[in-house]
Amino acid sequence: MSSHSTLRNLALGAAALSLPVALVATGADAHNHPRRASASPLIERAAAGPVDQHGGARRITRDQTQLIADAVKGSAAKNVILVIGDGMGDSEITVARNYLKGAGGFFPGIDALPLTGQLTHYSVERETGLPDYTPDSAATGTAWATGTKTYDNAVSVDRNGTPQQTVLQLAKKGGRATGNVSTSEIQDATPAVQVSHVSLRRCYGPVATTASCPENAKENGGLGSISEQLLDTRPDLTFGGGSATFTEVAKAGQWAGQTLADQARARGFQYLTDKAGLASLKRADQDKPVLGLFSPGNMPVRFAPLVATRGGADLPAATCQPEPTSAQVPSLREMTGKAIELLSKSRTGKKNGFFLQVESASIDKKDHAADLCGQIGETQQLDEAVTKALEFARADKNTLVIVTADHAHTSQIVDGATPGLDARVRTADGAEMVVAYGTSATAGGMQHTGSQVRVAGYGPGAANVVGLIDQTDLFFTMRDSMAAWTRANR
Amino acid sequence: MSSHSTLRNLALGAAALSLPVALVATGADAHNHPRRASASPLIERAAAGPVDQHGGARRITRDQTQLIADAVKGSAAKNVILVIGDGMGDSEITVARNYLKGAGGFFPGIDALPLTGQLTHYSVERETGLPDYTPDSAATGTAWATGTKTYDNAVSVDRNGTPQQTVLQLAKKGGRATGNVSTSEIQDATPAVQVSHVSLRRCYGPVATTASCPENAKENGGLGSISEQLLDTRPDLTFGGGSATFTEVAKAGQWAGQTLADQARARGFQYLTDKAGLASLKRADQDKPVLGLFSPGNMPVRFAPLVATRGGADLPAATCQPEPTSAQVPSLREMTGKAIELLSKSRTGKKNGFFLQVESASIDKKDHAADLCGQIGETQQLDEAVTKALEFARADKNTLVIVTADHAHTSQIVDGATPGLDARVRTADGAEMVVAYGTSATAGGMQHTGSQVRVAGYGPGAANVVGLIDQTDLFFTMRDSMAAWTRANR
Repeated sequence: MSSHSTLRNLALGAAALSLPVALVATGADAHNHPRRASASPLIERAAAGPVDQHGGARRITRDQTQLIADAVKGSAAKNVILVIGDGMGDSEITVARNYLKGAGGFFPGIDALPLTGQLTHYSVERETGLPDYTPDSAATGTAWATGTKTYDNAVSVDRNGTPQQTVLQLAKKGGRATGNVSTSEIQDATPAVQVSHVSLRRCYGPVATTASCPENAKENGGLGSISEQLLDTRPDLTFGGGSATFTEVAKAGQWAGQTLADQARARGFQYLTDKAGLASLKRADQDKPVLGLFSPGNMPVRFAPLVATRGGADLPAATCQPEPTSAQVPSLREMTGKAIELLSKSRTGKKNGFFLQVESASIDKKDHAADLCGQIGETQQLDEAVTKALEFARADKNTLVIVTADHAHTSQIVDGATPGLDARVRTADGAEMVVAYGTSATAGGMQHTGSQVRVAGYGPGAANVVGLIDQTDLFFTMRDSMAAWTRANR
Repeated sequence: MSSHSTLRNLALGAAALSLPVALVATGADAHNHPRRASASPLIERAAAGPVDQHGGARRITRDQTQLIADAVKGSAAKNVILVIGDGMGDSEITVARNYLKGAGGFFPGIDALPLTGQLTHYSVERETGLPDYTPDSAATGTAWATGTKTYDNAVSVDRNGTPQQTVLQLAKKGGRATGNVSTSEIQDATPAVQVSHVSLRRCYGPVATTASCPENAKENGGLGSISEQLLDTRPDLTFGGGSATFTEVAKAGQWAGQTLADQARARGFQYLTDKAGLASLKRADQDKPVLGLFSPGNMPVRFAPLVATRGGADLPAATCQPEPTSAQVPSLREMTGKAIELLSKSRTGKKNGFFLQVESASIDKKDHAADLCGQIGETQQLDEAVTKALEFARADKNTLVIVTADHAHTSQIVDGATPGLDARVRTADGAEMVVAYGTSATAGGMQHTGSQVRVAGYGPGAANVVGLIDQTDLFFTMRDSMAAWTRANR
């Protein structure tokens, strides 16, 4: 029976090993009402195992009523950290958890937020205003950034093209430090919605804007391209990819004829392009804002591709391998940790609080590409970023952390072969898992899907994510939590 | 612009119309902390619209902190009502909501429970004990019914075949009234797990049991088929389909040679097979338990089929039509309402409380069949059953209501054609929605999927569904909530 024991141990997997000892399930059956030591509860819900024994798979070993009651706090938040997993629906979370932690495992970031709900994320059609049930990331980002549903491809303009003030812009106006972090090109939809207003998401720089968004072009009296508006919005801190667009030249305005990178420097930005620069950063504020662009386009992902194929379910189970180029750029954890450190320690942030948006962008991009390992690695990156946010928030006690997705996506855990593409992997349990990509005949063309997605919260205001909410509610929850803190502290 | 106004009105749809006036969004921007009049809060979160206007799509119009705090109650529950949507993942909920209520709409049952979380539902392989990421309804039902993960096809036995006591059996032993309601054959996995213990789910009656589960057969000294064990477990009340099996003849024991229907009558059951019988029921208790079987097999569903096809996304948008045969049987709402009425008014139920499981079974069956309208209608049936449960629970104040799915399923809302099957419908918004079924090349073969699913709770103990839980946690939450009430009231 030793092979059986080995399997059993594998089944417990990494999750059980990573549990703080004091929180490991006790096996006690009777529910009672203990108060946790900390006034800021996280939840800790890995299965204690063995999962095939009575009670071994349970995630709760005592009554959680007091814990959840303790997690419901007043709604005034000095700081807000919004963490977006692009395309990270419940299916993508489960895929990554099964692979990395095992079925009974537990993400120390994603899964640890005590209050949870579901979020609707439809957009509206530009011509009719009717719902579009499978939105893109520009419309969905606009929803939480501005409180306004808009058409696909719109960046923080409503369906008439009118710019909508963003929560980052409001936070800055209200005296807070601000930051924007993504693993994508910083002009990509999710980071763009906080700092710019253009009619089509592709208007990254002056060239595309002249061609595709002429009404936004500087030479036509518009607000400019996404990159130019980023410099105008001037968050204290911006980390991501997308340096290529900063080699473009402004066509009008004070910096006409200069590259956007030179413009950034001329306007006082600390302009960085490598890990060493990130590590050496000492400040980020309005006098010396930071623009760290660590790759020309989207940042490299953590895992090498495992692309689903027709018949992929019949191949031997694979294991995800590291993507070597990812070591050349900072991880999302490093960027998030540095962002929180700089914003919270800046004079403005210390006094008035900060707003920070963090995105793991390539969960979506790799789901589109039917790249199972790519998708899993970027979910792991998100989990690590959430862990950083929660570490800060637990110590700070005045920080609202919200974790959600912008929309659902294609990947589904299935039993076996499908008419679409699929891939088979061996998980942390030592078991095999098949993941199907069925919304396109070709890898690269997988579609967003319309299912409601998980939303989770921690800290003051987090009760506003419980139950069914809409994506636009996040704007009001974040805005009002910050405003309440400001009112109470002036 | 009148056509535009019409579209706008359509976009608001049925949801806005069904809102109680006092709960309609006020448009007030400032969050504040009102106390609701009721001590038993439900949530009410339809968009007030227009959804393409700033704030028009929000579901929360004021801070929910106090409301959620009020929803977190002590964990002692006199009564427990568990409502299962078979195969009702977040995607299936969203499909049905979009179609029936509109994207900004709100289910008065499903969506009204104030506390929500996500639930993992893997099973274990019989040979190895390792996780199976795409479980069937027998293993998943066993998980919440007994607290034990088991293999696919097992009905409340562990992976070694050992019977596991069910929460219904425990509730009865603890002095409570008990009920079991489903739209499927009452021998189907989800209802079977509460009343029987067999090694394979197909062992409905003596014939199949002799052939497939000989160790369970009465003539071999076993507990008997699912139907025979149902009679032995003797819940106060059982409603569903599945009368065909009751024409089988017992092979051993006191009623050998008699049909199971005759056995039921001989043992004091009120044996019913039609709506009139249901309507005239006056009691359900251990002296006169009720066995109402309203169709030979699974009960008819509400909507006529709309089966997805290859290229179905390119067909004109369809509208779901009533299925005439469904009028011949009681609805799930009627069965649930009658069950709650009889159990709560019985001498046992009034004094000691009751446990009731309710299932809408054919969300799953129609998802397997790629039948979009079938699936939507059965989700509506579930919503109506939940509404009944919440009506009772709000008045009673000592009832825990839990609503969840047993596993995720195939259907996905997509933008357009897929390599699998798809169908296009016109929704309550007046917009078009495409739903894809991509896990099988043929309608009828669609697979369960492994995504975590929504779980929601109302009443004492409901805080134990918040955050990430496992299916087996439900057993302990229900058991311990009932035990706590019993301890406090003896």
